[in-house]
Amino acid sequence: MLLARVIGTVVSTQKDDALQGRKLLLLRPLLVDEAGQFRPGPSTIVAVDSLGAGQGETVLFCQGSSARQAAGMATVPVDAVVTGIVDNVDVNHRTIYPEPAKTSK
Amino acid sequence: MLLARVIGTVVSTQKDDALQGRKLLLLRPLLVDEAGQFRPGPSTIVAVDSLGAGQGETVLFCQGSSARQAAGMATVPVDAVVTGIVDNVDVNHRTIYPEPAKTSK
Amino acid sequence: MLLARVIGTVVSTQKDDALQGRKLLLLRPLLVDEAGQFRPGPSTIVAVDSLGAGQGETVLFCQGSSARQAAGMATVPVDAVVTGIVDNVDVNHRTIYPEPAKTSK
Amino acid sequence: MLLARVIGTVVSTQKDDALQGRKLLLLRPLLVDEAGQFRPGPSTIVAVDSLGAGQGETVLFCQGSSARQAAGMATVPVDAVVTGIVDNVDVNHRTIYPEPAKTSK
Amino acid sequence: MLLARVIGTVVSTQKDDALQGRKLLLLRPLLVDEAGQFRPGPSTIVAVDSLGAGQGETVLFCQGSSARQAAGMATVPVDAVVTGIVDNVDVNHRTIYPEPAKTSK
Repeated sequence: MLLARVIGTVVSTQKDDALQGRKLLLLRPLLVDEAGQFRPGPSTIVAVDSLGAGQGETVLFCQGSSARQAAGMATVPVDAVVTGIVDNVDVNHRTIYPEPAKTSK
Repeated sequence: MLLARVIGTVVSTQKDDALQGRKLLLLRPLLVDEAGQFRPGPSTIVAVDSLGAGQGETVLFCQGSSARQAAGMATVPVDAVVTGIVDNVDVNHRTIYPEPAKTSK
Repeated sequence: MLLARVIGTVVSTQKDDALQGRKLLLLRPLLVDEAGQFRPGPSTIVAVDSLGAGQGETVLFCQGSSARQAAGMATVPVDAVVTGIVDNVDVNHRTIYPEPAKTSK
Repeated sequence: MLLARVIGTVVSTQKDDALQGRKLLLLRPLLVDEAGQFRPGPSTIVAVDSLGAGQGETVLFCQGSSARQAAGMATVPVDAVVTGIVDNVDVNHRTIYPEPAKTSK
Repeated sequence: MLLARVIGTVVSTQKDDALQGRKLLLLRPLLVDEAGQFRPGPSTIVAVDSLGAGQGETVLFCQGSSARQAAGMATVPVDAVVTGIVDNVDVNHRTIYPEPAKTSK
């Protein structure tokens, strides 16, 4: 799975029947660089959402045939599904998400 | 799934039997850059179309085994199928497609 | 699917039983650049051929589990199969393959 | 499969039911360069762990539908699973992991 | 499938049960450049070997779910399997592997 940020939405009226009623989110995958910081990936991906993820949220998404193991997706032509809303990411025992509050000096 | 623009067509007469009668579109995947604009991807992909997408249209396509979940594709050797014609893409609550009309100053 | 040129052949005697008797072609994937010209991709891929594609021909190939939907491939460990010999590629209503004859000025 | 180092953990409360109770590790894939040394890859991946791999350990992980062949994963929407904890990596008959002790001169 | 050179081995004691007794090879994928020469790829991949491929040999490997079509792999969590030991690679009707003997001038 990859981490991603929800950056938008996609609307398509004329689509494969099995996609009717599905919410399509535009995701920007997030990488963690060697300094332990999120860095936006270069690509963007459209995923089906069934968890109610909102604009700006950090999510986990699953790709490929495994995406069809998500609830209700068995016979849907989807290769990317949001499978979790992320609460917390720790790197090297340090929390990088949610971003720690910066203290003024 | 990925967003893409239909840039052309591919014709093949001598092909796997299960592909007979399928329309093959040449797609250029589209990414959304950090400024929230479409940017053409470097690659091009051939996808089967069953929605009647035309030259220049913006579409959604599905890859891998999930492509075979699209209507009529179960036993076809296809790894990319157009699954939607895109009406609208919003990024950060701003519509980037269709491209907003530019107002003269 | 991707477009590719047949650039060579691979011979393997000691191989998985299900691959016995299969012809292995070396393919160079082709991309279409923004000027609408073929550009050779950086990678090379080995695909099973069942259409009799020859050296230098432009073909369509399918990857992943969908490759096993090609005729006779259901139980073969192949992740790339040539599924079409390409007659014609049009980009923006202009034929880029076969390459148009150049007229002298 | 790819080699990777466990660099962190991901916590998600609101997730697909089939993911409940699964431990999510953040992995950095490792490549071996031509000098025969590990080099961190640019991407990071979230994988389900069922082997109890800990922070900093070097692991093997499997991607795609094959990840669902790991014990207990058959119906889980996962595209990456840790399938081994690595004891030893040899390149050109030389052990590169665990890193050989450096002798002082 | 991709061509690769066997550059090493990976040992893992604590692993998914279905992987017990499998030999894990470290492979460096090989590309063919436009001059028709092998060029080492940037990545390295771990594949299960059932053909007895040895250090330095040139092999063919299969990825994804198709890897599980190799003999004995149906229920093993593997996404890469060595499916052939390569005897010969021809590019543009010229043998590039085994490397032709260089004649002294």
